[in-house]
Amino acid sequence: MRYELYYWPSIQGRGEFVRLALEDAGADYGDVARRPNGTAAMQRFLQKQAFAPPFLRAGKLVVAQTANILLYLGARLGLAPKSEPERLRLHGLQLTISDWLVEVHDTHHPVAASLYYEDQRTEAKVRAGIFLTSRLPKFLRYFERAADDRFSYVHLSLFQMIEGLRYAFPKAMARQEQRCPRLLKIHDRVAKRARLAKYLSSPRRIAFNQQGLFRRYPELDEKG
Amino acid sequence: MRYELYYWPSIQGRGEFVRLALEDAGADYGDVARRPNGTAAMQRFLQKQAFAPPFLRAGKLVVAQTANILLYLGARLGLAPKSEPERLRLHGLQLTISDWLVEVHDTHHPVAASLYYEDQRTEAKVRAGIFLTSRLPKFLRYFERAADDRFSYVHLSLFQMIEGLRYAFPKAMARQEQRCPRLLKIHDRVAKRARLAKYLSSPRRIAFNQQGLFRRYPELDEKG
Repeated sequence: MRYELYYWPSIQGRGEFVRLALEDAGADYGDVARRPNGTAAMQRFLQKQAFAPPFLRAGKLVVAQTANILLYLGARLGLAPKSEPERLRLHGLQLTISDWLVEVHDTHHPVAASLYYEDQRTEAKVRAGIFLTSRLPKFLRYFERAADDRFSYVHLSLFQMIEGLRYAFPKAMARQEQRCPRLLKIHDRVAKRARLAKYLSSPRRIAFNQQGLFRRYPELDEKG
Repeated sequence: MRYELYYWPSIQGRGEFVRLALEDAGADYGDVARRPNGTAAMQRFLQKQAFAPPFLRAGKLVVAQTANILLYLGARLGLAPKSEPERLRLHGLQLTISDWLVEVHDTHHPVAASLYYEDQRTEAKVRAGIFLTSRLPKFLRYFERAADDRFSYVHLSLFQMIEGLRYAFPKAMARQEQRCPRLLKIHDRVAKRARLAKYLSSPRRIAFNQQGLFRRYPELDEKG
């Protein structure tokens, strides 16, 4: 099966969680919006069939929403067990990662995504403070306990969360991740997976940057 | 099958989307946290197995996250077609409803859910303004086009969104919903479903209130 991923071409964003799954599985896929005129192709599609990127086409099928795409791909690409209880459990974890990601985004854009960061710096500082002292420890603690050792697409997503959080909040993470030996082990094992390691060092891996979900504003991090 | 729903006992919140499905299907279920000492039972569970309510127990199975619960129940309660493409499509719609709901919540708590509304009124006004002029029309337009006539749990959730939005933003909705004849038809048909109508007029239906996701702050609505 050939897959076509539709996502913004210049950020990792939510699409990266899908890219990691496709790359780790060695799937045959295209990253549509990164081709010439690809963003226009994606926009035409958006007006007709999906609320927001990412979405995935597989033949006639269109799958919208990151976690839904991973639910679909997990079964097909060998990235999830086939039993229904396990699939539901992993999907519940992935949806909790989606919630976590929204909270990361909101640290730099609490008032509105459509306004500039510079126009909501004061509120961002309040929100980031609450995130780092209360929410981040809670999410880390939850996944440290809930993640299991068996590889799945959830491991790929936890890897991405840790990478992103280290980019955005290097000081807070250096301190807080020490309490999460299991998550760190998952992260390190993912980084060493052959196809994934190759992807991460390829030009296909977009670097973290200040347009994505994870952004580095030193004033929002813990004091060092 | 007997189902046990775990959700906060005094608000509709996210749990209501699950209650509507269980009630419409006439399922055998308990609303655990509404029993004496039920919230304590839920809290014990939370510390062990789930990040946040709602979650659903079905025998040994625990399903977390609203949309995941509806994905699971949809197939079992006759609230969704059985074909995989249809199930993925409906789940994508439900996840987009989840995103919509977060944006509704953020109109009154943009800076942080853990702070009082009174301490973020200025920001709430900015955020609610953007929501009503830009995001609400976009979500309504999307679902007006994407929803189909075939009944499913997504119809129940769209009913709840319209009810909640009418409660929170009566003036804006009175104007904007006129552009959505299809959504209104779905809403009205849901309200007339026999078991659901009975539920809605029963004491089991918690009234909208100022602790829930949908809150009525007149200053956040459109001017009349």
